[in-house]
Amino acid sequence: MNIYLDNAATTQVDEKVLEVMLPYFKENYGNPSSTHSHGRKVKAAVEESRKKFADLLGANPSEIFFTSGGTEGDNTALRCLTKKYDIKDVITSCIEHHAVLHTVDELESCSNVNKHFVALNESGMVDYEDLEKALKDAKSSSLVSLMHGNNEVGNLSDIDKIGSLCKEYTAFFHCDAVQTVGHYSIDLSKTHVHSIVGSAHKFHGPKGVGFMYLKKGCDIDPLILGGSQERNRRAGTENIAGIVGMTKALELCIQQMDEHKDHILGLKVRMIKALRERIPGVVFNGCSDDIENSLYTVLNISLPPSEMDNFLLMQLDLNGVSASSGSACASGSEVGSHVIKSIKSCSSSKALRFSFGRYNTKEDIDRTVEVLEKICSEKVIS
Amino acid sequence: MNIYLDNAATTQVDEKVLEVMLPYFKENYGNPSSTHSHGRKVKAAVEESRKKFADLLGANPSEIFFTSGGTEGDNTALRCLTKKYDIKDVITSCIEHHAVLHTVDELESCSNVNKHFVALNESGMVDYEDLEKALKDAKSSSLVSLMHGNNEVGNLSDIDKIGSLCKEYTAFFHCDAVQTVGHYSIDLSKTHVHSIVGSAHKFHGPKGVGFMYLKKGCDIDPLILGGSQERNRRAGTENIAGIVGMTKALELCIQQMDEHKDHILGLKVRMIKALRERIPGVVFNGCSDDIENSLYTVLNISLPPSEMDNFLLMQLDLNGVSASSGSACASGSEVGSHVIKSIKSCSSSKALRFSFGRYNTKEDIDRTVEVLEKICSEKVIS
Repeated sequence: MNIYLDNAATTQVDEKVLEVMLPYFKENYGNPSSTHSHGRKVKAAVEESRKKFADLLGANPSEIFFTSGGTEGDNTALRCLTKKYDIKDVITSCIEHHAVLHTVDELESCSNVNKHFVALNESGMVDYEDLEKALKDAKSSSLVSLMHGNNEVGNLSDIDKIGSLCKEYTAFFHCDAVQTVGHYSIDLSKTHVHSIVGSAHKFHGPKGVGFMYLKKGCDIDPLILGGSQERNRRAGTENIAGIVGMTKALELCIQQMDEHKDHILGLKVRMIKALRERIPGVVFNGCSDDIENSLYTVLNISLPPSEMDNFLLMQLDLNGVSASSGSACASGSEVGSHVIKSIKSCSSSKALRFSFGRYNTKEDIDRTVEVLEKICSEKVIS
Repeated sequence: MNIYLDNAATTQVDEKVLEVMLPYFKENYGNPSSTHSHGRKVKAAVEESRKKFADLLGANPSEIFFTSGGTEGDNTALRCLTKKYDIKDVITSCIEHHAVLHTVDELESCSNVNKHFVALNESGMVDYEDLEKALKDAKSSSLVSLMHGNNEVGNLSDIDKIGSLCKEYTAFFHCDAVQTVGHYSIDLSKTHVHSIVGSAHKFHGPKGVGFMYLKKGCDIDPLILGGSQERNRRAGTENIAGIVGMTKALELCIQQMDEHKDHILGLKVRMIKALRERIPGVVFNGCSDDIENSLYTVLNISLPPSEMDNFLLMQLDLNGVSASSGSACASGSEVGSHVIKSIKSCSSSKALRFSFGRYNTKEDIDRTVEVLEKICSEKVIS
């Protein structure tokens, strides 16, 4: 099997995560909304998970709502906050995930919301002065939607700074934290944010489950209607195995965060160094090679332009390396990355995203650089 | 552990279902939207599942969309068909699941849709003449939303008849088939229905995954935005293990449908007979004791009124029987069942729903009737 360097698209489920999920596919099969013993047993599992999950993020259990994933979470937070609080101005950036951008577009066309894109610097970092100006200029109730870590180039935003600005100008702050939950320490008791969302499969949990944090006092109507689950915020029978698994996944991530970070950052630094040495003309897109300002899990590069540009991922794949051109969610479409296009300093050559995880090794990196070097010298083994 | 007679709330995952899911929590962990080998492997699994799932329902693979469950499916079909086709009249019934009723209420309040409740006969069966009248009277594009099998009392609708009427009057037909998929033979190549939804955990699949069938030619925009998954109809990384598991669950159900039906119907008939013999004054709510017109999986009864009325489920639970008062989705709320209240012939005493599955035995039934008899004679063992 290929070397897997696409951990920003999805991660391998941790064995310990699967282990805690199994009883909920077997003997503990009740519906948590049922009041009998079969139901109570799983209800307890959901609520214990909620408590543990909240503790791990510095939140209150009543602020955690389980969803089917990050995309549903972004849709719910943005649409339901906008509706409930009659938001008229949404300030976001053009390099957000489509789960945010497409939802904001819909709010613009169907709910008369004004969309404002905050300026980005050459490397795609949020221009905080421009954000402040936009907040000042907003004529009515406004909402800022800015992601924590960019899924394509890895740029990290300072969510404490954004939160403070939002607080100063009484704006709502929604944060897509899909790439950072489980990888960065997030303390929601300190950060001023109204909603954040995450997805289990990005931090070694299962696919099909995520969460939405909704700050105490924020009162939304559900996006998905039809039952009193999740305290009337999200109808539908709970994905118990998923919820229990996601909670275990977050617990494992947080317990070993420093260790994982050291290991993964080491791999990223090793790759940057090797690429600089062995591939003259390599471009690091966004802030990818800026250790402080980018995700330690993501490295986005462009090779020197060549006639191989459109076949790079295929060549990598044929040579045993799974990488991506950017967001997996957009890879079905033939248009290029909206993120790369929006960042001035990005190369015009095809971008390659390598994203690292706890199961990667130095050997994975060395082999990958070797393959890239061969591709560049057109001595491709296929 | 209790005798489990709440299979309409959720069912135990079949061992063979879990078996096919496991590789997608382990080695096959890619994101199906990724183009490399890890991604292609799971993409193939999703598309093979779609093909198999479609075949089992007489549909085309392009008509099947995977969702997070029945509730999301009802929300999507109703809201997106209404929006796309500018539906102005929705004809439904007051005994639909809340996933339908609450969604229709929202369409009424936010999208200027007129809601019309079709008349029901004394037992809660759809009055087809009244449905035809409503279709005739509809002034504009209309949509009929009627469920296949009622989750509380078990009443079965004739979806072929409803489909024919909708065809005659060029109305859209949405059907919540959550209680019948996997339990009844459904051939979508023959039934005139625009959308149906189902949920895996109601037919021995996992929780957190369902499907929406959308007839070829129906073109909706997605409810959940942000990615090109499910051919642009439902954004978000696919729950592969869930999708593979749901497909296996449906396959097993359909392979052994007659055998399961004989067994489960035998249990229901045994319970009806025993209750009639041993509990004078027992009332069968809706069409519950009408074998032809109700789900073979559901029996809804009321015991003769007594001061124990509010403690029946607790008494059953204490005596080792897991049953329910109706919909699990509404059990968190303290208001009584909207279904029981809407059906004239239903007893005013507390309703008890017993719902049977393939793992139940005659002994489960005999023991349950024994407990009910004891409760009625107030000689309750606790």
